Amino acid sequence: MQVFLNGSFREHRDATISVDDRGFLFGDGVYEVIRARGGRLFEPDAHFERLAFGLAALEIHGPGLDDPHYLHDVAAELLRRNTLEQGDATIYIQITRGAAPRTHHFPPADTPPTVLVTAKAFTPPRALQERGGSAITRPDVRWARCDIKTVNLLPNVLAKQEAVRAGATEAIFVRDGAVTDGASTTVFAVINGELRTPPLTNYILPGITRRVVLELAAELGIAARETMVYARDLVHADEIFVTGTTSDVQPICELDGQRVGTGVPGPVTCRLQTALAERLESLTGSGRA
Amino acid sequence: MQVFLNGSFREHRDATISVDDRGFLFGDGVYEVIRARGGRLFEPDAHFERLAFGLAALEIHGPGLDDPHYLHDVAAELLRRNTLEQGDATIYIQITRGAAPRTHHFPPADTPPTVLVTAKAFTPPRALQERGGSAITRPDVRWARCDIKTVNLLPNVLAKQEAVRAGATEAIFVRDGAVTDGASTTVFAVINGELRTPPLTNYILPGITRRVVLELAAELGIAARETMVYARDLVHADEIFVTGTTSDVQPICELDGQRVGTGVPGPVTCRLQTALAERLESLTGSGRA
Repeated sequence: MQVFLNGSFREHRDATISVDDRGFLFGDGVYEVIRARGGRLFEPDAHFERLAFGLAALEIHGPGLDDPHYLHDVAAELLRRNTLEQGDATIYIQITRGAAPRTHHFPPADTPPTVLVTAKAFTPPRALQERGGSAITRPDVRWARCDIKTVNLLPNVLAKQEAVRAGATEAIFVRDGAVTDGASTTVFAVINGELRTPPLTNYILPGITRRVVLELAAELGIAARETMVYARDLVHADEIFVTGTTSDVQPICELDGQRVGTGVPGPVTCRLQTALAERLESLTGSGRA
Repeated sequence: MQVFLNGSFREHRDATISVDDRGFLFGDGVYEVIRARGGRLFEPDAHFERLAFGLAALEIHGPGLDDPHYLHDVAAELLRRNTLEQGDATIYIQITRGAAPRTHHFPPADTPPTVLVTAKAFTPPRALQERGGSAITRPDVRWARCDIKTVNLLPNVLAKQEAVRAGATEAIFVRDGAVTDGASTTVFAVINGELRTPPLTNYILPGITRRVVLELAAELGIAARETMVYARDLVHADEIFVTGTTSDVQPICELDGQRVGTGVPGPVTCRLQTALAERLESLTGSGRA
């Protein structure tokens, strides 16, 4: 497998970073995971815009990083080199503040950022999408800037591991009684006949699939609102689903061991799941570059 | 410079880690910085105990990691190999959950942790300790498990950079009106004739130098208490200082641009600074191993 690291393509086994990399020492970096199908990226502009937002928030600058075409071209080339131009794949991009002698404050301004891009084949979790998954709720112990997609992901790691241990597929974070995010997803719920997802604040990761699903809901005439989703309401939700680049629309049919709604993927969930699948499918169907 | 990485000593330039290391991808690891003088570690038991606490909290297990002598021996050997047996040095230890294909949940249990130990010469910031530094206060946006010394340090990085930009030496975190930590230090203040530092909670890093300073205060008959330190009281403190493995006792003579007390290091600060210096000096004076 070939990866892209700091300006050049190389074999994965040769892709190593310095132990002084600030990604390793401080989690001082941001990342994106982008879906690809048939050699084309899904929602690339939205991903590169979010990446740019994160780089700006952390003040990480480097050659090419302000050019949305640069990483897009790298990703496309990686798909080609790894013969991933057919079928589903994921692109992983991580940019850190680079390697420098360890100081909490920023290193000298001429320290080149570390830029990693990888591509790998992806198998959509279709069985899980059809059958539905389950979730546990956990206190949201993350920091106060969840709107930046950084690699400070330890709380997400620990919550996801708790989910796995509980036999669940996702952990849903609750902060002060309100749902924020899933450990690696956005949370949606159908409550009182209305599709709800938390509004974008500093406690919410602005999911790309979240935005697409809200667009699709509007297209389909599904009543949807960005509004606080309280944990106490989640218990009585008719439907719950989580979204993400590698989750698509994943129904949550059990929450903290209790059945959600009828216990099977609900109608709103299924309509949006189908609509998203069609949106993804259109990547290969159209003549878009 | 030689470093220790995953079981062997090697040159620093050859010490690289996989881009799949979970330290790099998730900040999924813990670290320690230990002071050394004359080839001996300062408060090694306390550091290794805190490291063990962090490893247990994150459930990172690996050969030797439960043996406090193992890393101690590695550190001592590193000091020898780098001819740091005279004078001051720092030992840096970082242990991550190892390299594995990226998943939020834990990788297979047999994934070996990444163990990095480095040693480098250290020059205590004596001028700063004598003259005193300055601090700014910043909202504490860290996660809710600051008691674990993880490498999810981005909020600390950003706060320290803000301090540097403001011409200050430290950023003091305030959460809900109460002081928690410095970006890389513990905060002490003399208020109403009493030395105060925040009590240990999930929002506080249990500093080793903090503990030593509290011991020294008791030995010196200085009235000291672990109690909430409110930002509104900090403004009127007679003395403020911060402590840390590489800060020792650093007076803070200016806070958010305002003079602290008389504007010079206060008597309590100076007594503790001297006492800590003596404690460090005893490392070389005694026959202790």
